[in-house]
Order: sequence, then C-alpha cells, then structure tokens
Amino acid sequence: MEKTYDFGLVGLGVMGRNFILNVADNNFSAYGLDTDSEKVKSLREEGAGKVVDGTTDKKEFISKLSRPRKIMLLVPAGGPVDAVINDLSPLLDKGDLIIDGGNSFFTDTDRRAESLESKGIYFFGTGVSGGAKGARFGPSIMPGGDKDAYEIVRPVFEAVSAKVNGEPCVDYMGARSAGNYVKMVHNGIEYGLMQLISEAYDVMKRGLGLSNQQLHNTFDQWNKSKLQSFLVEITAEIFTKKDELTNKDLIDVILDKAKQKGTGKWTSQNAMDLGIPVPTIDVAVSMREISSMKADREKAESLYGAKSIKGDSSLTVKDVEDALFFAYIVTYAQGMTQLWAASKEYKYGCDMETIAKIWRGGCIIRSGLLEDMRKAYARDKALSSLLLDKDIAAKAKSCEVSARKVAAYAIGQGIPVSGMVAGLSYFDAFTTGRLPLNLIQAQRDHFGSHTYERTDREGIFHTEW
Amino acid sequence: MEKTYDFGLVGLGVMGRNFILNVADNNFSAYGLDTDSEKVKSLREEGAGKVVDGTTDKKEFISKLSRPRKIMLLVPAGGPVDAVINDLSPLLDKGDLIIDGGNSFFTDTDRRAESLESKGIYFFGTGVSGGAKGARFGPSIMPGGDKDAYEIVRPVFEAVSAKVNGEPCVDYMGARSAGNYVKMVHNGIEYGLMQLISEAYDVMKRGLGLSNQQLHNTFDQWNKSKLQSFLVEITAEIFTKKDELTNKDLIDVILDKAKQKGTGKWTSQNAMDLGIPVPTIDVAVSMREISSMKADREKAESLYGAKSIKGDSSLTVKDVEDALFFAYIVTYAQGMTQLWAASKEYKYGCDMETIAKIWRGGCIIRSGLLEDMRKAYARDKALSSLLLDKDIAAKAKSCEVSARKVAAYAIGQGIPVSGMVAGLSYFDAFTTGRLPLNLIQAQRDHFGSHTYERTDREGIFHTEW
Repeated sequence: MEKTYDFGLVGLGVMGRNFILNVADNNFSAYGLDTDSEKVKSLREEGAGKVVDGTTDKKEFISKLSRPRKIMLLVPAGGPVDAVINDLSPLLDKGDLIIDGGNSFFTDTDRRAESLESKGIYFFGTGVSGGAKGARFGPSIMPGGDKDAYEIVRPVFEAVSAKVNGEPCVDYMGARSAGNYVKMVHNGIEYGLMQLISEAYDVMKRGLGLSNQQLHNTFDQWNKSKLQSFLVEITAEIFTKKDELTNKDLIDVILDKAKQKGTGKWTSQNAMDLGIPVPTIDVAVSMREISSMKADREKAESLYGAKSIKGDSSLTVKDVEDALFFAYIVTYAQGMTQLWAASKEYKYGCDMETIAKIWRGGCIIRSGLLEDMRKAYARDKALSSLLLDKDIAAKAKSCEVSARKVAAYAIGQGIPVSGMVAGLSYFDAFTTGRLPLNLIQAQRDHFGSHTYERTDREGIFHTEW
Repeated sequence: MEKTYDFGLVGLGVMGRNFILNVADNNFSAYGLDTDSEKVKSLREEGAGKVVDGTTDKKEFISKLSRPRKIMLLVPAGGPVDAVINDLSPLLDKGDLIIDGGNSFFTDTDRRAESLESKGIYFFGTGVSGGAKGARFGPSIMPGGDKDAYEIVRPVFEAVSAKVNGEPCVDYMGARSAGNYVKMVHNGIEYGLMQLISEAYDVMKRGLGLSNQQLHNTFDQWNKSKLQSFLVEITAEIFTKKDELTNKDLIDVILDKAKQKGTGKWTSQNAMDLGIPVPTIDVAVSMREISSMKADREKAESLYGAKSIKGDSSLTVKDVEDALFFAYIVTYAQGMTQLWAASKEYKYGCDMETIAKIWRGGCIIRSGLLEDMRKAYARDKALSSLLLDKDIAAKAKSCEVSARKVAAYAIGQGIPVSGMVAGLSYFDAFTTGRLPLNLIQAQRDHFGSHTYERTDREGIFHTEW
C-alpha cells in the first residue's frame, strides 16, 4: 500500500510553505497542494531531507492523505477559500477536517462550517499569528470549531506552535467561528499597539530630539523591561537598518502612509455592534486613514504653519516608557473585554485565561504583560475588564502620572498622540462613577422625547421641557 | 366627484401627526392612515379647522389622494417600513411617490427603491430632523431619489420646512439613498456635538466648580455668540429645569447612562468602510457605551480611588467656550468629509453647499457655524475638508490655544474629555505633513512582508529586515 501523509496543506505561498516545513520538522509527514508548479518545486527543494512532498493535482493530493484527513488552507481570505472548499469537499469523506488558517471574516466561517457540517466534514476557522517566521518556527494558533474534532489536529498544532515555559501557544478557542474572532481581536490590539509605538517614536523624535541610534537603544532597553514585546523588539531593530539605495537610515525614507488589510476595521465595527468600546483600536484605524491623506495633510500644514515643537526638560524617556506601558494595558483591556462580550453574544464559550496563555508566544502581540493577564483571568474567570484586576490596576496606577504628563505635553505641542489620549480618556471614563452623560440623556429627552432613567428611583421618565 | 387630498401620511404617532398638521397649516390638504383608530381620532381633534382627515382603512386612504399620490411614511425603521410598502404598493399607480421619512439604513432604501422602480413607483428615502417640534413647525428635510420625481413633492416640502433668511431648509440631496445617508451623518455629527457639550459641562462643573445656575447662564451666553446652536440652546434650558418629584435640579437626578438608537454607530461603521476618519463621532459612540457600564465604573472608581479634581485659576470659561467651538469645527469637518467621500463612492451627486444650507435651520445640529460652512463650499464646491478653507482655518486657529489648554488640564485632572482630545489629535494629525506612521509601515514589512512606499522614489519596496 502506498504511503500516506499525516497533514495536508493547500496554498504554498511563503506562509504555507513555512507552515508545512514546520510540520515536517516536527515528525509529521506533510503533503502540499498548489496550482502553481513552481511553488510545489520550491517546497520540494526547501523540504529536502524531510518527509514532505506536494502536487498540483487535487485528486492526487486527497489520495495521499491518511484519514481522517487534516487539510489546512493558507490561501487569501474571501473567494479563494470558498473556491478551494468547493473544489475539495466532493473528494472528502465523513470525518475529514478542513482548517482555514487565513484571516477570514467570522461570519464567513459560520456559513462554511454549516454547509460542510451537512456533509459530515469538520471545518475549523483558525487564526495563525506570527508572520512568515512564526509559521516556520512556531506561531500562535487559534482554532475554533467542533470541540471533539479538535482532537484530530491537536497533536500537530501543539507540536508546531510556539512554546512558553514548555506550554504550546495553541488551544481550543471555542465553538464555530471563535478562532477567527479571537484572531480578529488579536489584530485589532496589534493595530492599537503599533499606533501607540509610533506615537512614542514621534514624541521622542520631535519632542525629545532623539536620534535613530538613541531610539534603537531606547526600544532595545524597553524590550528588556516591562514593555518586553515582539513589536518593541522589532522596532528596536528597525532603527538600525540602513537603506541599500541611499545608505541613509531606512526608517527615514519610508513613506508615512500606513496601509491596512481590514482586520482592525472589522474589530472596531464589530465592537460597535456588541456595544463594547475599543477607542484605542478605533483611533488606530483612523490614524492609518489620516496617514493616507498625505496630499491634504501637506496642504493643511502649509495653511496652518508647521508645528514648532518645543522640548520639555522635565519630560524623560522614562515618562514615555511608562506612558506607553499604561496605553498597552488599556489597549489589551479593551480588546479582552470585546472578546469576553463576543463570547457571550455568539456563545463561543471562550476561556479568557486560555486566550491570554496562547498569546504569550508566537504571535505579533506577544509581550511580558500577557502572563500578568493570564494570571488575572486565572484569579477570576469571569472578569469583565482587566482594569478591575488588582495587580493590573497596580501596574496601571504606577504609570498613570507619566501617561498624563506625556499626553498633556504632546497636546500642548501639537504632536498627535491619538492612541494615548484615547486610552487615557477611556481609563478616566471607566474609573469615574458619575459621568456627565446625564446631560446627553436630558438633551435626548428634550428634543426627541427619548426618556431617561433616574438616580433615585426605578423606571423610565419623560419631562416636558 | 369626491374631494381628494394633496398629501398622504402613514403613521400618526407624535412625529406623523405633527408633520401632517404642519402640511395642513401650509394650505395643502392632507390625509392620514394609521391602524390605531385612537390616533386617527387625535388627528381629527388636533386638526379641527384645517383640511386634514384620516382613516384606518388603506383602500380608503389611497382613494382619497390626488394623483400622482404623495405618501409619506413616518413609521419605525426596519420591518414596519417594508410592511407598509408591501401593503400599499399594489394599490398604487405608476408615477406615485412613496417617501420614507424615518431613519432607515441607506442600503435598505436602495433595495426598496429598486423594487418599487420596477413597478413604476418612485421612492424617496428622506431624512427629517428637528424632533417633534420641528415636525410641527418646520424641520430640516433631506430627500434623496429620482431627481425629476422630487418636483412632485418639492412644493409641500418647501412650504413645511424651516426657513433661514427666507430660504427653505430642504433641497434635493442626491440619487437613491442620498437622503438617508445625509441624515445618518447628520446624526453622527449630532452624537459628536452632544458628547462635546457634556465634556464642557464636566470641565466647568467638576473643574471650575460652576453651579447649575452658572452653567445655565454660561450656555445661554454662548448661544448668543459663536457657539449659537440648537444643542447649546436646549442645554441652557436644561440647567434651570426643576424636578417635579424632588424639587431638585432635574439634571442632577438623571442617570448618566446614555442610550443610542444606532445612527451614530452606523455613521462610524460606514466611515470605516469608506476609509474616512471620524474619530470624534467614534468616541461619542464609545462614551455612550462606557456610560452604560455603570456597575463596572463604580467598581473601578472604588478600586482606583475617586478623582480629586483641582481647579486651575488660569483656566477660564472663555477657554472652555473656545475649546468647544474648536471641537465643533473639527466634528463638522469630519462629518462633511465623510459625506463628500460617500457621494463619490455611491455616486450620489451631493452638493456640499446645499447640505450645509439646509442644515442651517430646523435640524438638531443647526448652528451659526453652518452659514460659514455653506460659504466655504460656495467658494470651493470640491473642498475635501472644511479645515482647508481659509476662513474656517482662521476660526479654528483663533481657538486652538484654548483647546489645547482645556484638554491638557482635563487630562491632568482625570476628567475624560474623549471627544475634545479626539478632535485635537485629528486636527494635529491632519495638519502634519510627516506623521510617524512610516514606522508602522516598517513594522508591517518586518513581520508580514507587507511592503512599503518611499519618500524619494516611486514604487513598492520590501526589505529583508
């Protein structure tokens, strides 16, 4: 009988090739499918010496996999995922498992899972984070779907995922599209953290006058302390990279128009549907949009005059570090509350501690703080906000003064720190028992008879103003 | 031959009854339909002496209207609108016109218009703003649909609408769902302005220590100056209203949980689809959500300690006035840019000057500033941002220092002024030629090979970091 392979992978681009080689490194035989024969050839070359092979023929691909088949798709989200499912599912048997490893919109996953379920085929929407390197050497993996079916693929995922203290950065996330939803919010948090780091850079460059070398040293130091995180780590690296074309520092020749692929936007839009505030993520999306309005910004700068930024001798790099850490905490808190609410709304059954646990390694938002977050959820599984945990609160408090100092300075100087001030305002609103929105209720009742509640008794009231 | 009526109205709730009485006041005979005979009776009583009548019978209703029939629906958005359309459309003739006057989602209007068009019936999604009083004595009306069909209803709408300098606050907004879209963004701006006013209230109450009487006087003064606007006007009124149950100031017994009905959320969500930043509106939505988390906020206040707000003798009521005016400008600018982009994306053919013109009176966001906005668009029909108009820029600049002062003070004290800081950050980002988002592009290329553009040459680049 012909040899069969443990694991199938469709889509042999960089991510797919790296993932399948990672699988093969971990003593699972793996077989790839791509319509591009060059990509199959690349896989064979890079996989020399490992039990890995590939084909351009879907029937051959299916025939090579041991049952129940485990087939992971790493193809672009949207139409291509549906196309591959339509192509392969007639060839599959009951009990086989398709894993979509792309950033599919969560309702697409629900639709696909329902359709495949009627054929007895399992479908797992699965977030994979860590970029090309993560795929090759250990990503964070967020699978969602049928709980029992997860056992089919658990050994492979646990083997290939990143490890933290020996624990794999993968676990079952929850029912149906839970995996995609968790990955979506992961990316929303990623948008927030990236925006915040760019603000810290702006304050230190234009405000404190740091050179790229000093910025490198600073981020490198930060990465060894409470801000330890993948994004701070690569930021440190970025500041030392030279441009091959001009020999200038590469960072200085990169255009300030930030692109996006949609997951941050989805996070914000869906948070609004849930009624959960994630203002730091919202503003990170907005800032990428504003960055794209380059021509208008240049016009505006000449109309309003370039900002003349003054330093402030009482403001230190340590203040910026603390402000960034404070904003990190608030951003994670917003995202985690969104996940907590989504799990209730969509009946995912997410375990918040598990999510924090598998984000500690492999993924783009991994950071030292995630272990503290994991502990917070271990203390209280039902915690509605990380800001209500005593240890997290102590950390936030210790940085609060600097956060205010940096924000007030930047606002005074005209340096846009949208993410930091969104975080601070969120924090201030969340920690204030009585907000001025009684006035909004009064206005709504005044012009639209929308009624209001009272502080001193139950019921719904209306006044003829 | 039996007498026929000029105008039909379905839905005789407060809004509908007020609107139809307004029509009758303006010498158009009007006929109402409601399934609730009590409401028909109320209409007859309130309309005594006017040429107005009603029925609970749809066939009778249709038979009473002169052709082409002009039938306006003032029923709740969603299912009820479809139900009425399904009920009435088989009884209508080619060339008749249905006007949906509710806050329908714009894509629903496109769907309904398309379906009715195939039957030769015109359909107008039409924003109506001004609350119950506006409907009775002159609202701002935003009709969208077939341009020629607008002539059928123009005389009625021009007669019943609010007037500014003799000009009616109604005009043709654009093709298909343009009317609903314009009204949606109107409401988004309304969310922003209400949030900003509540922040000014908070700063003056907790920061400057103003009493309700002083707050009344302040808002009353403001309404006679550059901040003249309906929302400031009713805010002044609100602070003098006594509670009938306790004889306290009513504002102080109203609960600080602000509700929402969805149009603000839609504005934010759709702005993200368009790639247009409206952070002040986003944060106004977020703040209503945070306000609803009352129990968590109270827990957080006891965990973090109540804020001890210190006044600042250098901060004046005039500073707050200027900060609010600055934030008003930025909020309108965000919303108008969204409309400008939506008009291009959805091919509405909106005229920005016309929108500003019809918002000057009747609607909830009417204000003195709208005449300046109208002039800005008269100077440049294609203006992408109000902030790029020289006169608007001069107004913004004159208040910029106070805006920074109030924001920095509030941030220092822990008073959440989310809308004001969102507006300032937007302004600072929009007026900065070079933003730090080159770092975000570097990060994206580092971890995800997402490529970047350069400042010094065309093309798409990738670096092996």
